[in-house]
Amino acid sequence: MRPSKLTAEPVSRLVDELGRLPGIGPKSASRLTYYLLRASREQALALAEAILELKERVFLCSTCFNITETDPCALCLDPTRDRSIICVVEEPLDALALERTGEYRGLYHVLHGAISPVDGIGPDKLRIRELLERVERERPQEVILATNPNIEGDATAMYIARQLIPRGITTSRPASGLPVGGDLEYADEITLGRALVGRRAL
Amino acid sequence: MRPSKLTAEPVSRLVDELGRLPGIGPKSASRLTYYLLRASREQALALAEAILELKERVFLCSTCFNITETDPCALCLDPTRDRSIICVVEEPLDALALERTGEYRGLYHVLHGAISPVDGIGPDKLRIRELLERVERERPQEVILATNPNIEGDATAMYIARQLIPRGITTSRPASGLPVGGDLEYADEITLGRALVGRRAL
Repeated sequence: MRPSKLTAEPVSRLVDELGRLPGIGPKSASRLTYYLLRASREQALALAEAILELKERVFLCSTCFNITETDPCALCLDPTRDRSIICVVEEPLDALALERTGEYRGLYHVLHGAISPVDGIGPDKLRIRELLERVERERPQEVILATNPNIEGDATAMYIARQLIPRGITTSRPASGLPVGGDLEYADEITLGRALVGRRAL
Repeated sequence: MRPSKLTAEPVSRLVDELGRLPGIGPKSASRLTYYLLRASREQALALAEAILELKERVFLCSTCFNITETDPCALCLDPTRDRSIICVVEEPLDALALERTGEYRGLYHVLHGAISPVDGIGPDKLRIRELLERVERERPQEVILATNPNIEGDATAMYIARQLIPRGITTSRPASGLPVGGDLEYADEITLGRALVGRRAL
């Protein structure tokens, strides 16, 4: 007997679609599908509508390329933000994380990724050209390159810095070091090394 | 500044909806949402439609309570199945797993859960009454109680067996023992104990 007799076509279809999402394997996709089968009609409809609305109402700000429902986005329009600093991040979630610190009052620029030759992502696939045009136009005092502290993020920051420094723009990178509340004993060598190199006078 | 300025409302709405799914925490929900933002419109629409179709086209068979697009389901109608055996399982996925073995040719009955007083799930919340009515009606020779081999599944099997045995129905439970391809050394004591008790002559 083909297992299809026991699996309704809409079930296997949803298992397939969920399985295409990152971090969701075939087993999780099945579990989620059977959960949605049991869930209330309202909950399933709310989820489907949230997905549809995301694609209908959300797009990228033409200035900072963060996600927004209006163009320019609310943050780019906010008169209380410091327009002399642009913080460059890989993803919208990174900007959100920086906002949560409450330490940053400037503007953002979202690259939507990092340079990664292995994955076929060159500078042309990111919003780097738009960043350089924006910097020419807005002439900020400083550009913070807050790409992730890993190989791809470091390479991306270096690539951008090499184009900004000749233009006379101050570029910086957030400090690498020990996480607050962390334990020196358990820090990896690279982090500990960077924390030593970047030590600050008390 | 409120983070809402950086988070479009449809984004936080989808994060909330995804976060209501089992096994998906706030971080995974955010990641999936931003993935869907970047994904093609086609992929997002396909996912939303698959969810809607699941709720529109799939319901429960009125005989075996497995998921189906037709009532009775294709398996209940299949003339090649052995109608003298009913295998009772907790979830549709369990029936699917049994089908995949190719060892079972009888019918199914899906309880949609197991008795679990801690979670407020009593026998009345499962399809047990329907099973007893069905057994009276169809008079199968045997009912296999293939609920999960854990506390809740064992309790559920015992509860059902106590009602079937007085009705003169043969009830059985799948063997517990060592998984095929497993290593005796690594088996837990309970499994190893059950494997010894259930040993078979060669």
